[in-house]
Amino acid sequence: MSSAGRGPQVFRRSGGRRGGEVVGEELWFWFEGLLGWMPGRVGRLVRSVCYWPFIRSAGALDVAEHTHIRMPWRLSCGRQVSIGRGCQLTCTETVVLGDDVLLAPGVLLVSSSHEWRDPDRHIRDQGPRGGPINIGDDVWIGARAVVLPGVRIGSGAVVATGSVVRADVPSRAVVAGDPARVVSWRGERPDGA
Amino acid sequence: MSSAGRGPQVFRRSGGRRGGEVVGEELWFWFEGLLGWMPGRVGRLVRSVCYWPFIRSAGALDVAEHTHIRMPWRLSCGRQVSIGRGCQLTCTETVVLGDDVLLAPGVLLVSSSHEWRDPDRHIRDQGPRGGPINIGDDVWIGARAVVLPGVRIGSGAVVATGSVVRADVPSRAVVAGDPARVVSWRGERPDGA
Amino acid sequence: MSSAGRGPQVFRRSGGRRGGEVVGEELWFWFEGLLGWMPGRVGRLVRSVCYWPFIRSAGALDVAEHTHIRMPWRLSCGRQVSIGRGCQLTCTETVVLGDDVLLAPGVLLVSSSHEWRDPDRHIRDQGPRGGPINIGDDVWIGARAVVLPGVRIGSGAVVATGSVVRADVPSRAVVAGDPARVVSWRGERPDGA
Repeated sequence: MSSAGRGPQVFRRSGGRRGGEVVGEELWFWFEGLLGWMPGRVGRLVRSVCYWPFIRSAGALDVAEHTHIRMPWRLSCGRQVSIGRGCQLTCTETVVLGDDVLLAPGVLLVSSSHEWRDPDRHIRDQGPRGGPINIGDDVWIGARAVVLPGVRIGSGAVVATGSVVRADVPSRAVVAGDPARVVSWRGERPDGA
Repeated sequence: MSSAGRGPQVFRRSGGRRGGEVVGEELWFWFEGLLGWMPGRVGRLVRSVCYWPFIRSAGALDVAEHTHIRMPWRLSCGRQVSIGRGCQLTCTETVVLGDDVLLAPGVLLVSSSHEWRDPDRHIRDQGPRGGPINIGDDVWIGARAVVLPGVRIGSGAVVATGSVVRADVPSRAVVAGDPARVVSWRGERPDGA
Repeated sequence: MSSAGRGPQVFRRSGGRRGGEVVGEELWFWFEGLLGWMPGRVGRLVRSVCYWPFIRSAGALDVAEHTHIRMPWRLSCGRQVSIGRGCQLTCTETVVLGDDVLLAPGVLLVSSSHEWRDPDRHIRDQGPRGGPINIGDDVWIGARAVVLPGVRIGSGAVVATGSVVRADVPSRAVVAGDPARVVSWRGERPDGA
């Protein structure tokens, strides 16, 4: 807390972005705000049609209400992807969802966070630290789970409710907890696991 | 990710539901969307009156803003139940809340999730796996806690902020963590605990 | 669950509050509902101007959409504070944020919860238990983290995504988990830590 000027001031933003992206993102946010509140199956139908030009999708895409997708042009979805109520996908880096991915309500995929290691500079000034998120086919991510930057989740995996996924998840593994650890497997346990 | 037709496609839904329920649910969602955003005590008053025909309640029911209740006709509330901001109650199975239950903001009660054990079929096609949730009298569930299908929480219990409750909670126990474990008791510790 | 009168009843509120505060809070909630949904940078700009008379701030304040601040008159912000999408700040006790504090999306600061220790009285009737929250300069609180009543977070600290902070955090510490524990330091590890 310190002395400062009176009245609202301009906010100093972290992370540089190109002007075109800023405008495109702004328009997308308002579009999302306009359609995102619509409840029920009618809302899902409206969004699956109207989001079509903005999100790369190999087939039907199902987006529940109150979701928030930053930079949808960096999101790529397979067929029959389902995004639950209140999910937030921060696609400042590439985010790839395979076929038949199910995101339960409140899932958070963050492809970018803050660099903080330098103790002598403000975190705000150290810029972002991110990495692409890659999720395979037939993956179910449970309610309120969080997937952090750079994580790769193998096909057929299950992420339990409320997990925080900080490292890669092997195919058909079932992970839970913070940090998420393998607690079971779909089918037989692979050799060496 | 794979080749697929162009243009939006019909989304293949998991879990069969009777046609009447689908229509009823749709109407409820729009009704909820219409009333659910109203802030403050005025909003709570409006909802406590207008939700009355739809949610079985033994007495005053207090519902904060931005809550989401799926299939309210399977929810049964005691007297003086309070549901906090942004709570989500998925009542695909029966959910029973006792008298004086307090749900803090962002609590999630899920009575149904996906079956995933068969590694050779898509999770979407394995149908739901659920069980009724039963919460006793005078229970406080802290902010952002999650209660999973089939869980029974005894009267007088306290669930700490951010817990994930995967198993039954005894009466007057205080549980915390993921998975939630007993960390304390209200009053004396019962014999054998 | 028990016998009870028919028709909606008056809800018995926990915690006494002065009448003036109740009216002020109600008006604030509707004001917040009116401005809070506005997406993008336009929404942030509108809020940083319009929230100015209500939140004590030493400099630019950046508030994303769908945040919820209870009793903003007990919140005090330093310069360049950023509050992410969907954050909830329950300022029933004083909440102080230092300069350059970054709250990621979905952060929850709770300065007051329920007293529950007496097993012979309803939790609702035992009143609140709270304490001021104090967050130093240049602190980054990750997405979905929760900070509980009475917690003091030192300058330069980092709180990892999804943590539940139940105790004080030393300066420049990096904490994670539930309950949040020190997992690293920004810069050199201090003596005796």
